Amino acid sequence: MQRVRGVAVGSIAAVIVAVIAVLVWRRGAQAASGPPEDQLPHFTTDGALMPPAGWETWVMVGSSTGLSYNQAAPPPPPPPGAAPGMFHNVYMQPWAYREFVATGAFPEQTMFVLTFYEASRKSAPARAGFYEGDRQPGYEVHLKKEGIDPTGWAFFGFAGGTAVGQKLPGTTPCYSCHATEAAHDNVFTQFYPPLRERLGKAAP
Amino acid sequence: MQRVRGVAVGSIAAVIVAVIAVLVWRRGAQAASGPPEDQLPHFTTDGALMPPAGWETWVMVGSSTGLSYNQAAPPPPPPPGAAPGMFHNVYMQPWAYREFVATGAFPEQTMFVLTFYEASRKSAPARAGFYEGDRQPGYEVHLKKEGIDPTGWAFFGFAGGTAVGQKLPGTTPCYSCHATEAAHDNVFTQFYPPLRERLGKAAP
Repeated sequence: MQRVRGVAVGSIAAVIVAVIAVLVWRRGAQAASGPPEDQLPHFTTDGALMPPAGWETWVMVGSSTGLSYNQAAPPPPPPPGAAPGMFHNVYMQPWAYREFVATGAFPEQTMFVLTFYEASRKSAPARAGFYEGDRQPGYEVHLKKEGIDPTGWAFFGFAGGTAVGQKLPGTTPCYSCHATEAAHDNVFTQFYPPLRERLGKAAP
Repeated sequence: MQRVRGVAVGSIAAVIVAVIAVLVWRRGAQAASGPPEDQLPHFTTDGALMPPAGWETWVMVGSSTGLSYNQAAPPPPPPPGAAPGMFHNVYMQPWAYREFVATGAFPEQTMFVLTFYEASRKSAPARAGFYEGDRQPGYEVHLKKEGIDPTGWAFFGFAGGTAVGQKLPGTTPCYSCHATEAAHDNVFTQFYPPLRERLGKAAP
């Protein structure tokens, strides 16, 4: 009996430690390969999008100034020396970027976050040009999710920095415009240097 | 003897598993907290900087257009409708950014990578504005390293995309200009929205 108890105690200890080891290992393996939880979209029960956390540390795929899609009345060019229009930055999740680089396709749950900044004029020591000034409170998210819309993507607006993002209706022009004008799977890769480079495309 | 051997086998198994668990745990902890090897600067034996790998996935702290520091002859503003000048993007290592957010200070081995893009004019569906066109082959790195220069920072040029970056001499104007004009520890945080926000400063 004493022998049996001794073996049993040793084995139970070994099993407990083995279980802990496997749990620790799994957490490590998950962190290394799968999409990290904090880079995935999360929704409220009524389908609004929770604000993506830490998007400013995501991969910035392209910046632009004064872009406008207004076909009916494109804005006049700014007068000499005036600001070139607001800066727009576009960010995507690091894991989705790695997937895109590996496969050339955007995985399900890819998100692009579009943010806006005042174009601020040169201040010391700059003598010419514009930099990113005050960030505007609102931003937009473009999300890939099967079944969410016939295009496979949806837009969510956080106008004025609202707590959750409401899905824009599928009749909003951005859906049809992205479907027909985007260079790659509803995404304006033509404006994003690292995505263009991965696809082997030059700037249009 | 049989009892002793049974206990010994159980205990040895437990110890082996425990050692593996600790090794796995340490690797996970190291990956989570310390600077990842591929985000650290590496040098040739004669002090040139190896090209930083994967900088396009680092944290983009600020974009600008047509910035010029030329005090003697600032460039004239572009004529109406002309490009606002080249886009400049500035990236820093994710671990250094996390450290800065946590402490408000740039850790040793912080690197900023400055890249350049043509300002490309609107193409479909854009009706106005400019986006980041072809990336220029050259880039620059600003590195924090004790003893490298009296300012504690050095500049390395990869003009034309050279294989390694040569350190710019300390007499180059960028050293004195960054030392006197930068808002925070030789870094132009005044131009970088997320760094400004961390320091509680508005755009100048």
